[in-house]
Amino acid sequence: MKYKIAIIGTGNVAWHLAPALEEAGHTITEVYGRSTKKISDITQKLYTAEEKLDLDFSDSDAEIFILAVNDDAIFEISDQIILPENSILVHTSGSVSVEALGYSSASFTGIFYPLQSFSKDRNLSFEEVPFLLESEDQETLQKLKKLAKSLSHLQYVVKSKDRKALHVAAVFASNFSNHMIRLAEEIMRRQGLDFEMLKPLIIETISKSLELGAKRAQTGPAIREDLNTLEAHHQFLNYNEQIAEIYRLISQDIIDSV
Amino acid sequence: MKYKIAIIGTGNVAWHLAPALEEAGHTITEVYGRSTKKISDITQKLYTAEEKLDLDFSDSDAEIFILAVNDDAIFEISDQIILPENSILVHTSGSVSVEALGYSSASFTGIFYPLQSFSKDRNLSFEEVPFLLESEDQETLQKLKKLAKSLSHLQYVVKSKDRKALHVAAVFASNFSNHMIRLAEEIMRRQGLDFEMLKPLIIETISKSLELGAKRAQTGPAIREDLNTLEAHHQFLNYNEQIAEIYRLISQDIIDSV
Repeated sequence: MKYKIAIIGTGNVAWHLAPALEEAGHTITEVYGRSTKKISDITQKLYTAEEKLDLDFSDSDAEIFILAVNDDAIFEISDQIILPENSILVHTSGSVSVEALGYSSASFTGIFYPLQSFSKDRNLSFEEVPFLLESEDQETLQKLKKLAKSLSHLQYVVKSKDRKALHVAAVFASNFSNHMIRLAEEIMRRQGLDFEMLKPLIIETISKSLELGAKRAQTGPAIREDLNTLEAHHQFLNYNEQIAEIYRLISQDIIDSV
Repeated sequence: MKYKIAIIGTGNVAWHLAPALEEAGHTITEVYGRSTKKISDITQKLYTAEEKLDLDFSDSDAEIFILAVNDDAIFEISDQIILPENSILVHTSGSVSVEALGYSSASFTGIFYPLQSFSKDRNLSFEEVPFLLESEDQETLQKLKKLAKSLSHLQYVVKSKDRKALHVAAVFASNFSNHMIRLAEEIMRRQGLDFEMLKPLIIETISKSLELGAKRAQTGPAIREDLNTLEAHHQFLNYNEQIAEIYRLISQDIIDSV
């Protein structure tokens, strides 16, 4: 089943999603954004999409409207957008409930959330991206499943409440683990050491964590309750009170979690 | 150049290192430990090594003695060990200085630190393990370089002071990033959600972090200063004060690091 789809938004998700949908055989009818430059950056990668600067889609051929914008903009745009009869409006956010689309002119609403970290300057294959789907309307949910299936082999139906919990977990697993690597980078740079040395350790740590589970995979001074080393490390970090406190708190949580 | 080597210790590092040294063509003369069971677990994987329960190595054929024990035991054992003439004593710790071996009967001392996270129940190839080496004696340092080169293509000469800083960085990059995944696992389990959903995100996050650098790779509510989402997540975590505080502190540090 191929769909006609309008993309509302020009951020990282729209940037990756629009060409992927076209490659999967769907038609992108329009790309909406506030900046003509950003719109054309995306439409240049597409065959047929019309560039659109207003939110009146009453004459659109699209059946599915994908709202790929910042969380705050979801409310604003879904309130203003004018949609044709029998249209489906979905958003791509991990943390906003489906009710946020309830005041729109859409006949049906839902969630089409690709659980991945998107950056413009990095290619990404959708095949391994889990799509988290939701809709109160069963027919809409089936369409979203087909749409997700055309991009990826991972689809899950997840309710808004669970999706919000999952988003908190994703922040720990992704943003916070990345920040731990950032702090390691800073310590190495400050000491004039080559960060490359740490890369094999990071790769092995994460592989092990995903294979054995993070509890069994844990090593290091905190899990050994090596208090001398913990104290020495805390002392070492006294040039930055906040980072020293992060060290102390996470170490304590590792000790407590045994 | 092939060496005769004695292994002092029966932990995770000894478990992996002893067979790897033998495979690289060196001879393991003895394995020392306090538990006969743990010694024989290792010697069973070796051809010729003698099982040793005392620290008198005065008759040993070994030239290099590798102390692969807990940080605290380094001082104790290096003080008690009796070594033959012209022997080299090294330890494998990231956080203990070379001076800790200064009171031993060794003619030469040094560091032979494999920068990796070792678990017994996981195979590991040494080829990609960076070896951090140190010795005040140039001839000893050359021997340690040759020994490391026989196992891995990554060798670095790093002074004790820098190695200690690197060990702090390694705790952030490895133990703490693993704990962030642990906390994500707990949130998912608590909500009855399948942790598998998060794995593609974690793999992409770490790949991106190592390729672009963690600063450029950062995404999520903190870097966007999406205060509504940060507040909602903090509220969600109020069932555990310590984890809520970890969330708050790391988010603040991400905001501050822009």
